[in-house]
Order: sequence, then C-alpha cells, then structure tokens
Amino acid sequence: MNNINVVLFNDFTLLDAIGPVEVFKCVKDSYRIQFYSQFGGRIKTDPDLDLLTQPFSEIKSHDVLLIPGGLGTRVMVKNENFINQLHELVYKSSFVLTVCTGSALLAKTGLLSNHKATSNKKAFDWVMEQDRTVIWIKKARWVVDGKYYTSAGVSAGIDMALGFLKDNSSYDLAKNVAKTLEYVWNEDRDQDFFG
Amino acid sequence: MNNINVVLFNDFTLLDAIGPVEVFKCVKDSYRIQFYSQFGGRIKTDPDLDLLTQPFSEIKSHDVLLIPGGLGTRVMVKNENFINQLHELVYKSSFVLTVCTGSALLAKTGLLSNHKATSNKKAFDWVMEQDRTVIWIKKARWVVDGKYYTSAGVSAGIDMALGFLKDNSSYDLAKNVAKTLEYVWNEDRDQDFFG
Repeated sequence: MNNINVVLFNDFTLLDAIGPVEVFKCVKDSYRIQFYSQFGGRIKTDPDLDLLTQPFSEIKSHDVLLIPGGLGTRVMVKNENFINQLHELVYKSSFVLTVCTGSALLAKTGLLSNHKATSNKKAFDWVMEQDRTVIWIKKARWVVDGKYYTSAGVSAGIDMALGFLKDNSSYDLAKNVAKTLEYVWNEDRDQDFFG
Repeated sequence: MNNINVVLFNDFTLLDAIGPVEVFKCVKDSYRIQFYSQFGGRIKTDPDLDLLTQPFSEIKSHDVLLIPGGLGTRVMVKNENFINQLHELVYKSSFVLTVCTGSALLAKTGLLSNHKATSNKKAFDWVMEQDRTVIWIKKARWVVDGKYYTSAGVSAGIDMALGFLKDNSSYDLAKNVAKTLEYVWNEDRDQDFFG
C-alpha cells in the first residue's frame, strides 16, 4: 500500500488536487490518500470551501507527495517556514507530483534544481522566477525527471496521474482507470494542446 | 450574478462536484459557488476528506443546482426526507445539473419523468431503476432537456459544465475557460467515448 500525501494550503485550486486524487482512488488496493496542511485543521480553498486536514507532523510514510497549485502559491513561496518543511517532505518522498503552479512551491525548495519540469502556461514566467536553475520546459503536458512528475495547468494533472500509474503499474491499469472516470486520457506527455 | 448551489452528501465523488465547480469558478463575475448539505456541517467524501457545508435551509437563490454522484447516492435514494427536500430544491431551481449517478437522485424526485437524461455507464441499470419513466439515453456525453443537464460518469461533468456555459453565455467563453483549465474539451455532447 502506497500513501498519497496531498499537501494543502489556503487558496489551492481544488481541481489540481482532486483530479489526481480521483485517479488514485480508483486503485484503492494500491494507494491510500490523505490530506495534510502545515499545521492541520481547516483549509480554505478557492472556490470558497473549508476542508479539514491533518498536520504535516502526522505524515508517517513518504511514498507519494502531491502538491497542487493555485493562487495560494503566491503567498506560500514567501513563507520560509512552510518551504523548509516542504523541503523535508519532498526530500523524504519516493515520488513528488505537482500540478499547475504546485511546481513553483517544489522549485522554491531548491530540490528541483537541474531537473526538467513544467507548469501552468499562464503563470509560467512567475514560476520560472522561483528557481532559474530548473530546466523549465514550457511545451509539455507533463514532465518526468527522476522522482519528480510536474504537470501543466489544472486538468493536465489528471493526465499526469494516469501517466504515473502507467509508469509504476501498467498501461492497462491506467486505461481502465480512465474508463472508470469516463476520462479521455491525453496519453502523450509531450503533446501540449495549449503551448 | 447566478448562484451555483452544490448539493453534497456523505460519500459523494469529489471530482463529480469539483470538475464543474472549477469551470464556474473561472467565470467569477457571473457565478457564485456555495456548498450545501441537508443539515449543514461536516460531510465526509469518498476519498476520505471532511468538508464543511451550509444547510439546505440557507439556500436563498435558486439559480443553478449541481448534484454530484458517488457511492453515497445508493444510501440517499432511500432517504425519503432527503429526497423530499431535494424535490423542493430541484423544483425551484432555474437549472439542475447532475454528474454521474447524481441523476439517480434527480430521478428519484420524480421531476425528471418524461425527460431525456443520461448517467454513469457502469451504474446505468441501477440508475434507470430509480424512475423508469425517464427517457434514459445511454450513449451520450451529456444530455440537455429543458432545465435539466445530466452528464455521463465523473469527467463528463466538466464537458457538460462547459456546454452549459456555451448555451447560457457563449462558445468563446466556454473555449476560454477550457483554455484556462488547460482542459481538452469534448465539445460534442452526442459523442460518447465510453458507450
């Protein structure tokens, strides 16, 4: 059983997190999904919805870390304490998946340096500023480099999560999950429809 | 400003609700999104996440009602009190959008009788049982009949929400929202990829 540890913060984009979460939920026997924030408790999302989370300190197993994006990343990149704690989680995790501007948070930890990565198209310049030593690739649906999976904006996270299943389980499993979600999977990570 | 009133219940499928919600969030000037459950308070989702909701009694404006599906629908169709209250909300709403097995709840109110509708492929037989007088259409991405928009499984809700924007605002707006979400919109509601 692999743990999917979802990192939440105020004003994250719901679909960034929930798209991949729904993919992993379809493989319940392999993945257990849990939701965390720095201090636990209530997290306010964009749009306006309150979610209840556990604190980072409760993360016991560091299999897969999932970091969504959203307007809240603009605040969190400046939060040194948060970034330091995220650094530790990223370092310990076997895999790190980011969606949209979640890659800005990952970049800010410094651990993405010299790795290939992508992000949301509309925020790309801002994301690149977080660490210029990352090999930023604008034209991609998602990018894989070692343990790092980074996706383009919002919906691309669903395609990436299916790609992760393909890489770590099988193509047939990924196709079956897409079918269960009645999702038309954009399978080719290099085919960017919005680049 | 139109209100999007999202109906939540225990064990609803997160992506059913969050997909369309994210679409409407992109048109903030036109839509205000709020989350309700029968009695308000904490709702447990599938996967395991607690959300905080307002009670049905707090719904003041009945513009658009959004009903997700999920395992919880199996319990809720048998909850007479819930279905009676849902009946009132559906009756009063200008538009009612359902995703996946959310159409089973809508059908159970009786108000979908003699209307065309669709639902999740894998649960189709069970959904049809909720009201045999509905004109169930299995091969569709989503179906529109009067004020009722019903979509196929999970991800089809995103396509339907974009279709709703197209019908009620403009095609350009729907295309722009899809672009913002970097979502490859399946525009043709009659083209069913999983039928």
